[in-house]
Amino acid sequence: MSTLLTTDGKVASGVRIDYSALEDLFAPRTVAPYTPPPTGIDNLGITSTDRFHIPGVGEFVVDFKGYVRVARSKPTATDWVNAEVYTNLIEMRMFGQTDGVGEIVVTLNNDYLSTGMLRTPFECMSESQPDKACRMAVGAVFTVPKLGLTLYNKEPIELTIDQVRAIPPAGNPGVGRIYRMLPLFRTDTTGGPPAAYLTSLNFAMGTYLTESELAALRGMGSSVV
Amino acid sequence: MSTLLTTDGKVASGVRIDYSALEDLFAPRTVAPYTPPPTGIDNLGITSTDRFHIPGVGEFVVDFKGYVRVARSKPTATDWVNAEVYTNLIEMRMFGQTDGVGEIVVTLNNDYLSTGMLRTPFECMSESQPDKACRMAVGAVFTVPKLGLTLYNKEPIELTIDQVRAIPPAGNPGVGRIYRMLPLFRTDTTGGPPAAYLTSLNFAMGTYLTESELAALRGMGSSVV
Repeated sequence: MSTLLTTDGKVASGVRIDYSALEDLFAPRTVAPYTPPPTGIDNLGITSTDRFHIPGVGEFVVDFKGYVRVARSKPTATDWVNAEVYTNLIEMRMFGQTDGVGEIVVTLNNDYLSTGMLRTPFECMSESQPDKACRMAVGAVFTVPKLGLTLYNKEPIELTIDQVRAIPPAGNPGVGRIYRMLPLFRTDTTGGPPAAYLTSLNFAMGTYLTESELAALRGMGSSVV
Repeated sequence: MSTLLTTDGKVASGVRIDYSALEDLFAPRTVAPYTPPPTGIDNLGITSTDRFHIPGVGEFVVDFKGYVRVARSKPTATDWVNAEVYTNLIEMRMFGQTDGVGEIVVTLNNDYLSTGMLRTPFECMSESQPDKACRMAVGAVFTVPKLGLTLYNKEPIELTIDQVRAIPPAGNPGVGRIYRMLPLFRTDTTGGPPAAYLTSLNFAMGTYLTESELAALRGMGSSVV
């Protein structure tokens, strides 16, 4: 039995959450700061600006807009300082377009279980109300129909949020921790070299969506994929 | 067919190399700077200082010494600027010990194909002799017998080396790109929360080893694992 696969054969970047019984959380909803939250599935907006380099084509920068659905575990403690919260990114869709390469849709790689967690950094454990750190290791698929490319990452994209004072960290900016160039591969070939690179990623978590806002974002770029 | 597994069921962080026919490279050996190298398997020394945090136990810092064996692809171009080189970390063993937690041996996770690459950063492509950037995404196993723990990472440990002026970058310092705390899991349980965290990693690539130096390093900590 592989140490890295879930029972249904996905590659997991961390702790898997059984979210079958979790409540779907939508706007309007208030979040208490510095408080371990009840478990649930957060339906949140997201925006991201990603920079790509495709050898032979060039560099392009894309502003994306979309949504995420994040399943959250029950916190491991009732106090803010000690509580760890595990997360699974169970759905994502972002849409963007540029003059150069047309429409791009970003979704999750279903072969990967994109997981994350929030906890107090160890050096801050003696503070009474520390900011938490949030990480999420993501496997994504980038569909670029104008170029005939569907790309994915093998190394996870490490999305991080600092200064987390509420869970979820709605409204916080975050960054993809990319060392210079994250290789992206074509889904339609096996074992080949990278076809493109993700060179930077800056995102911002949105706030809770209403069910109709989520439905509208689900429809963006539906002619692409 | 999963986009993330090799044909023999390993999770791959990048390009797989068929190294069955590659020459094993040992000391003494000179490396030409700024020159795409002939392919081969580099047998190199390595040292690393890793910082761990185990909740309930505390923090400890370990100085490791050991070796790596790195298979290198044929460069994609004959000129230094344009050449990409892909790497597979096919063997690693590092040994360390501390007063607090005793001996620790670090080896590769055989469920993971630890891969990397070297290439010129895109912003440096117009230089005549740019430094290259080196990345390697590693799945490791940390055996700590005194604590009864064998730990592994699910997110890869991203080892990076800047200012690469020769391949291999023997003697270069490098860093593990860890966002605050990389979760480590027990090999003897499935689906549980992290049991420990790797909080920092600084390493230095050594030079080519002789066969007898490699054999001596292979024996370090052999009573542990």
